[in-house]
Amino acid sequence: MSRFWSKTVHALTPYVPGEQPKLANLVKLNTNENPYGPSPKAIAAMQAELGDSLKLYPDPSGDKLKQAVAGFYGLSSGNVFVGNGSDEVLAHVFLGLLKHEQPILFPDITYSFYPVYCGLYGIDYRTVPLDAAFRLNPADYRAPNGGIIFPNPNAPTGILLDLPAVEAILQANPDSVVVIDEAYVDFGGDDLPTAATLVNRYPNLLVVQTLSKSRSLAGLRVGFAIGAPELIQGLERVKDSFNSYPLDRLALAGASAAIEDRAYFDRTRKAVMASRDRLSEQLRGQGFDVLPSAANFIFARHPQRDAADLAKALRERSIIVRHFAKPRIDQYLRITVGTDAECDALVAALADILQ
Amino acid sequence: MSRFWSKTVHALTPYVPGEQPKLANLVKLNTNENPYGPSPKAIAAMQAELGDSLKLYPDPSGDKLKQAVAGFYGLSSGNVFVGNGSDEVLAHVFLGLLKHEQPILFPDITYSFYPVYCGLYGIDYRTVPLDAAFRLNPADYRAPNGGIIFPNPNAPTGILLDLPAVEAILQANPDSVVVIDEAYVDFGGDDLPTAATLVNRYPNLLVVQTLSKSRSLAGLRVGFAIGAPELIQGLERVKDSFNSYPLDRLALAGASAAIEDRAYFDRTRKAVMASRDRLSEQLRGQGFDVLPSAANFIFARHPQRDAADLAKALRERSIIVRHFAKPRIDQYLRITVGTDAECDALVAALADILQ
Repeated sequence: MSRFWSKTVHALTPYVPGEQPKLANLVKLNTNENPYGPSPKAIAAMQAELGDSLKLYPDPSGDKLKQAVAGFYGLSSGNVFVGNGSDEVLAHVFLGLLKHEQPILFPDITYSFYPVYCGLYGIDYRTVPLDAAFRLNPADYRAPNGGIIFPNPNAPTGILLDLPAVEAILQANPDSVVVIDEAYVDFGGDDLPTAATLVNRYPNLLVVQTLSKSRSLAGLRVGFAIGAPELIQGLERVKDSFNSYPLDRLALAGASAAIEDRAYFDRTRKAVMASRDRLSEQLRGQGFDVLPSAANFIFARHPQRDAADLAKALRERSIIVRHFAKPRIDQYLRITVGTDAECDALVAALADILQ
Repeated sequence: MSRFWSKTVHALTPYVPGEQPKLANLVKLNTNENPYGPSPKAIAAMQAELGDSLKLYPDPSGDKLKQAVAGFYGLSSGNVFVGNGSDEVLAHVFLGLLKHEQPILFPDITYSFYPVYCGLYGIDYRTVPLDAAFRLNPADYRAPNGGIIFPNPNAPTGILLDLPAVEAILQANPDSVVVIDEAYVDFGGDDLPTAATLVNRYPNLLVVQTLSKSRSLAGLRVGFAIGAPELIQGLERVKDSFNSYPLDRLALAGASAAIEDRAYFDRTRKAVMASRDRLSEQLRGQGFDVLPSAANFIFARHPQRDAADLAKALRERSIIVRHFAKPRIDQYLRITVGTDAECDALVAALADILQ
């Protein structure tokens, strides 16, 4: 604490990201990174940008990337906002579109950054409990509110809400912005279950996505939002009052190329989904309760073993998973889907621990 | 305007960055970029990071870059905060260290983003007039205040305040954070006139710098702040409540290597200073009043010619400079120092226009 800090800083409870250990030879299954590298076309695009042109500012509006995203979803550039990771996009969403008189609503079990943003910007919120099976019930989102946000698939549960249920929430809240945080949606099935397809029908819908998961670019920091132009313009106003150039030249080039490489995207996300389903079965075979995951991670508990103890025992075997010491979920582990070899190493370590 | 926007968004007047035209063959002297490319060592460091490792998140704390900056100034990592361009760093500074009961103070002619940040975060401010020669008088900064910020050298004037005068402001305001925004300080002389040398003596001092100018990395988006650990910790709290990973892996690698390449830094900044002094003399020879610049740009007016007309006439000759239609400075042009060849093209075009 310091007398030089603003009241805001004194009151903050910052987000704690998953550990990024600087050790080699770890099986790192704790931050939902993709086991496959980025598209070779993304690497080539960054390579082409790597030189003297870095002395020049990037395009402040990121038009090329907006066009790539718009093209992917059959929308126009005016439907797209881009930012320095979906965390920055979400921050601008909270300040620009979710700060109103009424409290905003989000699930009790969800991305733990949401209450942090509320603290940063002085936004009142109310959490809505998921049901006993960790499912979100659209009927619970009818109270007066200043906005609604939830991840879909939810984090850290991995459970997907289907699009008719998403539409029910949109229809019940025509005067609120409803933000669908789709960090993991590309792992939700061969056909993408994204709400981006609904953007032209719901002026109150904002979809947020990231290139950190399905495009294997966590190290590049690129995210985006999709919505009606008036929502996008609100976000642009916040962005241009915060940082005119949030995306560097390499990130703009690499992200655009990654979005345009549909074939690589489909191949790698399908490989991850196959590994996930295989790992889920293996864990069930070891006695775990495994929630049905539509993401690139698995949320599981073992009825006979304490989750924190399991995480510790795995760590002693150089395997890192994530454990949240929070109500309702403190007996679960969140396990990122790695390559089949990494998943096999996890299963073997668990067999050793559980014997 | 939209009913979905927060009150904050409705009230914003966003910053307008200098134009980034997508045309070739322009002499671009409007956004204070460096005419020389980045250090070859910075390019090599990014090259080494360009590959599969981009699937992994970057180090959220940016330790390697903090160590490079600390090493450059003979400080410790705990004195350094890093961010996505100095604009992001400044945004966090306004919310975290400059938002108090009293209004903050900054010059009437200064970086035009400052009042925008105040609008974004609801910070009251009072502008303090520069004198008739656009000089900052430390005696004017003794009113009760919630903080003080000014660029040094100032923008867009290019005028440097010497370190004893900076110290006078620090000493007169022991209970306020005094932010010295040193985007251009590396062009202030062979010996760097940075206030970073004062950090260990003034707990209320925060120095902000960027790699966009003297390190030729405007396209990479990296900035940093230097100060006492308690100020840095306040900024870290804001950052970890906004975006855990503001700097991508390529930016961390390139920026660290650029800071460490002291020889290239000295060679290029001295070349820019030599070109600046040469251009200043040429413009004076054409009848311009040229303010004494300690930056990589020149602020000049012609007693007989309207500045907006001059900017327009230059643009017709494919040369872009910046004109601010603002009180006191609307008869000035801000001209980035390019290569000597670019400066010669400017001088030739002006000779043609002025004849």
